[in-house]
Amino acid sequence: MSENNYCLEIAKRIYNLDTKVSEALGSELGRVFNGPMQQCISDLATELARNGQSYQLRGKIVLIANMARTIEDKSVNKAMMKEYNSILKEIKSHQTSFNSIDILNETSAALNESNFTNNTLKEGDHLIICISRSHGSAGADIGFALADKLHISYYDVDVLDQVLRHIESEKEKEWDEERSKNDPIYASAKNLAKSHTRARLTQLSLNHGLSKEDADFFNVSKLLIDMAGREDFVVIGRCADVILSNNNIPHISIYITAPTEIRAHRLMETRNIPTFAKALKQIVKIDKKHELYYHKFTGRIWGIANNYDLCINSSSYGIDEAVEVIKRLINR
Amino acid sequence: MSENNYCLEIAKRIYNLDTKVSEALGSELGRVFNGPMQQCISDLATELARNGQSYQLRGKIVLIANMARTIEDKSVNKAMMKEYNSILKEIKSHQTSFNSIDILNETSAALNESNFTNNTLKEGDHLIICISRSHGSAGADIGFALADKLHISYYDVDVLDQVLRHIESEKEKEWDEERSKNDPIYASAKNLAKSHTRARLTQLSLNHGLSKEDADFFNVSKLLIDMAGREDFVVIGRCADVILSNNNIPHISIYITAPTEIRAHRLMETRNIPTFAKALKQIVKIDKKHELYYHKFTGRIWGIANNYDLCINSSSYGIDEAVEVIKRLINR
Repeated sequence: MSENNYCLEIAKRIYNLDTKVSEALGSELGRVFNGPMQQCISDLATELARNGQSYQLRGKIVLIANMARTIEDKSVNKAMMKEYNSILKEIKSHQTSFNSIDILNETSAALNESNFTNNTLKEGDHLIICISRSHGSAGADIGFALADKLHISYYDVDVLDQVLRHIESEKEKEWDEERSKNDPIYASAKNLAKSHTRARLTQLSLNHGLSKEDADFFNVSKLLIDMAGREDFVVIGRCADVILSNNNIPHISIYITAPTEIRAHRLMETRNIPTFAKALKQIVKIDKKHELYYHKFTGRIWGIANNYDLCINSSSYGIDEAVEVIKRLINR
Repeated sequence: MSENNYCLEIAKRIYNLDTKVSEALGSELGRVFNGPMQQCISDLATELARNGQSYQLRGKIVLIANMARTIEDKSVNKAMMKEYNSILKEIKSHQTSFNSIDILNETSAALNESNFTNNTLKEGDHLIICISRSHGSAGADIGFALADKLHISYYDVDVLDQVLRHIESEKEKEWDEERSKNDPIYASAKNLAKSHTRARLTQLSLNHGLSKEDADFFNVSKLLIDMAGREDFVVIGRCADVILSNNNIPHISIYITAPTEIRAHRLMETRNIPTFAKALKQIVKIDKKHELYYHKFTGRIWGIANNYDLCINSSSYGIDEAVEVIKRLINR
């Protein structure tokens, strides 16, 4: 069949469906094509033949389906929808523009553990949920409750700091024991050294000349990559999403926020802040701090929906239901 | 039991759990409380007794759980987690701060159809999914595919325009017939009137003196509220989320976006735009238009995660999986 005849054929089917649907509804009210039959069909065929933007055509066909769905007689309803689906399938298989070109980015999709269609999870990959959150949005509380529900580990800035401190003090102990064994002068000198001096020296040596913030970021990055090979976990903040993406480690990135007024009122309660204005000021200050930190280490804009797989408005759900939403999204 | 004794009791249980976990792991490496026992317990008790901010305390207790989860012997693991859960429950029931004050906003939650815990859906409420989207993010394609999968109606700007045009022309026809019946002079005069003149007059009379944009918004609002009483549907844009909220009609509001570069590349394909720069320019222009429209009629900032129940990065999912994500969210 020639392209023209093909389009004419489909145009006729669309026009006929519209006619049948309005007959079944006993009203011309919902009829999409009101003009003279030959003109309508020829216009439709022209639109079908045109490649490129066909949202308007889609709109017209959808309108027929919207009307068809209101037909009360079930068997007629079913017959109309069957013809609609068949027409749609025909157009989709024929027309790229109508078929809608996908927005999928293969790199993001492959790293996104809540994408089941395009995710190429390998055995040994762990479930890692990265939560960023605006101040006062209960993001950390949601992460904590989520980890608890999923029976997986939970890491926020305090927990990560403590883990790092443990690792450092273990390293220090090892280094100290090793040197004491091999160097009797060091062994006796160290007894004289003030503990805070030693701590400061160790800190400096571990920072490799970096600023404390840079060194912390470096250490947290190393730790996260290591943990990702060993266990499932929820991690709050610390640019974990970008660190994992840059290291090709699958995870889910979620941003949790809520309207500023609601966050401010909650902070007044949770942190005993006496006035709304003071709570707002704290939100602006801490959100700004997070924004600058995130931008410094990732070059990205913090809190913009573009940069996460999902964003959740915690005030629309509350803590418990936000946990349930995330569980539904990751299908657990 | 006095408050002090109670805190001391819990502190002891926490300290003991830490000891048992590190014994079970055969290593002091993960031990949270390294100092002298009496000192650790007394510090812990002080932290427990202090109301207000107890995230640091939570961090320490979580750390014990994170370690306990790595115990390979299943029965020991289970016993440790049981004691951890029991301690947590005890603290939660005792301390408001640890219990974390909720972020739930009752108004938003009651209107949010994807909130199952706090939603008070009445019989007769319909499933209404409002999708806002940035230009080129495939938001409308996702909405279209979603409506198709859920077998519910789909309304975007083109479909809504056509519905409104139908309604207007029906009204016009009725008015015309009524007047022709009662007024023989009108009946003959109207045969002379140019159709485009009549159309213009009708348009003016329907706008009630409002600008076209304001009149459209007013008409779409009326239509949406009417539809919400009759059927399930997906609606794209048109500030539908805010219109429904303002009229106390439950729905789900979703914002769909993707990184700007990815949207620009997709637009080059879908709209045959020759250069990346031109695609970017189109994105900025159309997003700005949506932003101004949304702000004009809602007073809110468009595209900010605060203002929707959920935001989805379509490039992390692609069209088909984004549809699945929304279906998982609403549990269908």
